[in-house]
Amino acid sequence: MLKELTIDQFTETLASDSPVPGGGSAAAMAGATAASLVAMVASLTVEKTGYEESWDEMSGIREEMEAVRVFFLDSMDRDADSYAEVIDCFKLPKNTDEEKACRVKAIQDALYEAAIVPLSIAEKGADIFDYARIVIEKGNKNASSDGAVAALMARASVKGALYNVKINAASLKDPDRKAELLQKVEDLERKADDAEGEVLKLLEF
Amino acid sequence: MLKELTIDQFTETLASDSPVPGGGSAAAMAGATAASLVAMVASLTVEKTGYEESWDEMSGIREEMEAVRVFFLDSMDRDADSYAEVIDCFKLPKNTDEEKACRVKAIQDALYEAAIVPLSIAEKGADIFDYARIVIEKGNKNASSDGAVAALMARASVKGALYNVKINAASLKDPDRKAELLQKVEDLERKADDAEGEVLKLLEF
Repeated sequence: MLKELTIDQFTETLASDSPVPGGGSAAAMAGATAASLVAMVASLTVEKTGYEESWDEMSGIREEMEAVRVFFLDSMDRDADSYAEVIDCFKLPKNTDEEKACRVKAIQDALYEAAIVPLSIAEKGADIFDYARIVIEKGNKNASSDGAVAALMARASVKGALYNVKINAASLKDPDRKAELLQKVEDLERKADDAEGEVLKLLEF
Repeated sequence: MLKELTIDQFTETLASDSPVPGGGSAAAMAGATAASLVAMVASLTVEKTGYEESWDEMSGIREEMEAVRVFFLDSMDRDADSYAEVIDCFKLPKNTDEEKACRVKAIQDALYEAAIVPLSIAEKGADIFDYARIVIEKGNKNASSDGAVAALMARASVKGALYNVKINAASLKDPDRKAELLQKVEDLERKADDAEGEVLKLLEF
């Protein structure tokens, strides 16, 4: 699994001429980093004097962000695997009409899956902004910049993953599926830009 | 070294209640990811039919990005170490006037170093945009979205690192050093936003 690679190994593999892992897995890793930074601020708040009123909420956020971190780490492979499946489908035989029809169907299904997986990364990444805001507003003030970095990473994760949604949706023949995906892309792109801006505004100095 | 941790271990450590590693190391990791994604597009272009005219340039970019990747991986520790040094200096004895003066001097020097290190991360991250633009314009079209994700990661790296510059510069007593650092922060923040926007515009669809 990609999460078992060291950071040195992962970035080296990313830089290679293999088509996977690529931007989608990098986006998932950025999401894991964002969730971890929110968890860090929460961790630095629990049991700290002066923040007694936030202890329960921060403890809950730390737990939720741990689940989000695990989701993103697993998504690094899910994204790479879904795209590898598209590549495999293109190699299916196309000698007879039946084989051709079967190949087209397999490619279309694989493309849809390869759009749905990064969409789930983008949706999960977009959820992080609210948590980043809460830890900056109610968490340990000494760590609030880590909440800001979380928002920067969440935006990179969302918008990065959406490139893979767009690329794969572009090759879909079903106009309804395509339109539905592209509408979600547009909404999430706007949300990522707006929400990041709102979080960063909390600690302008 | 942090680069020797698996992605699972690194993000878990990040999420803990230890003040380091934090946003600065995360920013450095994002920079390493950005450099690797640019290198990936270059790698997927070298020796590919149809891109013969770009082979030499892409080969050069791949080498340069490898050096940048290594710089960022090492910077993950440099940032964590420089901030840990600030924390250590605050623990120095302050019983006599001499000890107090010595402590203040040590803290100020450590703070300056803890601002300079993330500044070097931000400066290196800002260099990536030009390479991202070149690989999108002249590299393998099938991988151009990886160049776009590189630009997203580079912006997160630059702006994330700059938070640590600002925080540490804010506690500097020397007004000239402080003003010089804050001017650089302002310039780099603007550059990161503008340059990312220009790169992403290259593949709007």
